[in-house]
Amino acid sequence: MALNRFRRNLLPEIEDGLKRAVNLTDEKGQEELNKMLVHHMGWSGISSNKSIAGKRIRPLLLLISTSSLGADWEKALNAAVSIELVHNFSLIHDDIQDRSELRRGRPTIWSIWGIPQAINTGDTLFAIAQIKMLELRDQVGGEIALNAQKILLEASYRLTKGQHLDIAYETRIGMSIDTYWKMIGYKTADLIAAATEIGAVCGKASSEQKKLYRDFGYNLGLAFQIKDDYLGIWGNQVSTGKSTRSDLMTGKKSLPILYGLEKGGNFAKKWEQGGISYEEIPLLVKELENEGAKEYTQSQTSEFTNRAVEALNSLNPEKDAVDALMELTIELLERES
Amino acid sequence: MALNRFRRNLLPEIEDGLKRAVNLTDEKGQEELNKMLVHHMGWSGISSNKSIAGKRIRPLLLLISTSSLGADWEKALNAAVSIELVHNFSLIHDDIQDRSELRRGRPTIWSIWGIPQAINTGDTLFAIAQIKMLELRDQVGGEIALNAQKILLEASYRLTKGQHLDIAYETRIGMSIDTYWKMIGYKTADLIAAATEIGAVCGKASSEQKKLYRDFGYNLGLAFQIKDDYLGIWGNQVSTGKSTRSDLMTGKKSLPILYGLEKGGNFAKKWEQGGISYEEIPLLVKELENEGAKEYTQSQTSEFTNRAVEALNSLNPEKDAVDALMELTIELLERES
Repeated sequence: MALNRFRRNLLPEIEDGLKRAVNLTDEKGQEELNKMLVHHMGWSGISSNKSIAGKRIRPLLLLISTSSLGADWEKALNAAVSIELVHNFSLIHDDIQDRSELRRGRPTIWSIWGIPQAINTGDTLFAIAQIKMLELRDQVGGEIALNAQKILLEASYRLTKGQHLDIAYETRIGMSIDTYWKMIGYKTADLIAAATEIGAVCGKASSEQKKLYRDFGYNLGLAFQIKDDYLGIWGNQVSTGKSTRSDLMTGKKSLPILYGLEKGGNFAKKWEQGGISYEEIPLLVKELENEGAKEYTQSQTSEFTNRAVEALNSLNPEKDAVDALMELTIELLERES
Repeated sequence: MALNRFRRNLLPEIEDGLKRAVNLTDEKGQEELNKMLVHHMGWSGISSNKSIAGKRIRPLLLLISTSSLGADWEKALNAAVSIELVHNFSLIHDDIQDRSELRRGRPTIWSIWGIPQAINTGDTLFAIAQIKMLELRDQVGGEIALNAQKILLEASYRLTKGQHLDIAYETRIGMSIDTYWKMIGYKTADLIAAATEIGAVCGKASSEQKKLYRDFGYNLGLAFQIKDDYLGIWGNQVSTGKSTRSDLMTGKKSLPILYGLEKGGNFAKKWEQGGISYEEIPLLVKELENEGAKEYTQSQTSEFTNRAVEALNSLNPEKDAVDALMELTIELLERES
């Protein structure tokens, strides 16, 4: 498989690049800061292993996009590192905001080192991410570096706008599906679109091509998030009540739930009573299915996947790399957990 | 006075630039985010007035530096806006980390909107700050914009390293004076040095000039912080116990306190017993004076002020602007509160 070949070549380079970036903090007096970052990135501590370190989807998409235009992906490595660091900066702050004590099965930074240091460590990572993007200039020149930087900064800015909506509706119930689209667009799809677009820019794409790469990433990002929402209710073990990780328990604003709420039927009535117990999950899942939420969520995943694939098919670059992007799309959308 | 003339011309432009930047968030669905930023910047809410909005020292220093090289300060306005926003991003997070409920006499963002939104609003401001710096390119070209960006990003990064030390020693007592210098260098002096250096870069300074502007800013920043520490103990009303804002009550790691602790005399003994009451302040202040902490702190302020003035005197640019920088230096260091 083309994707496996890319993974084999790229992932070690991405990981090395990330380590070099994080090890900027490896200086006297900053040992603890370095330790927090190394812990968060999954390189140390309890059950540190590859799956812990995250899937590095964004840098993979970025580098394969560059490669798909016949350019040398190594030139774009700093950009790939940068976008993964921005993603991780947002995770560190997200964990504080959500009060999540675990991420990928391990204690989060704030739960070990406290909120003040965790906020600051996220800030450090954001600054390092932007510094890495500046270094792109040495490989691709100032013009392309400035373009890449603009794309990443605007995506970072929109990320915070999406996060604003996410937090605002944590306490204020009643998010509409319209607001949901805005939120996941800002919070998830824009950063994935930035990955493919920056990859294209580093591969010297024309402005027409750039738009197609962006469309591919953006629609993939939406499909990816909706699939996540789907799995939060119908994922392995979740819908049967064998796992407590159902979004029905945590009260997450996911697409099927918002759909059910807008329907205003039995599901909505139950939900508004609040205090949903473990045993009620299978029943609530059934209600959602009866009201069409499962089909709707699946149809939306398909819709955005189709749009992503359509953009990908309009590209006419290196076959191998496009195959790899297609495989990655399928893999992300067919996952069962 | 030259400084007054600059203030009259520059401050309204700086304020307008800041408002334009913050009003990027003025969009449907982000009203609350915009409101938080407007509140923090001092443009709304309880007793909003000029002194509330902050003194805008960093953008003033930046623009006067540009002007001092005979260049048009208007070209550097985006950079000035950017550096003030970075400063304010750090204040928003600082207030959460310190649990400060008031800043400049008004409730802090986290104390009104909660910690999750306050973290995110700081992140938004950081992203906007960097976007503004990118826009500098339209006025000064890509090369200078990239240089300015590098200086600001590295200063932002060091800011987080200084903050890391500050928080780390909140809980671990025993900061050495050596660590203190590192902390205030990273946390305060580097950003002020970035202001004068970026100002110089925008004024097309030679690399030799650039270094002098940086030295001026860096030493001014150190002197400024030490003066702040001095006022925290010997400021108006503070040393007499008429105000509870004495650093002796809040336990801040300030230079005179660290000096007293390293002396290991009566002050140190008292301090280590903890639980210092309001009534004990005059006595503790006296102990510090007996042990030489006041003189030491004053001598350090003079030392770094002299270095700043020396750098300034080595410059040979527009007389008016250098006069203004000198006046600003004196004003910052002769303040009584």
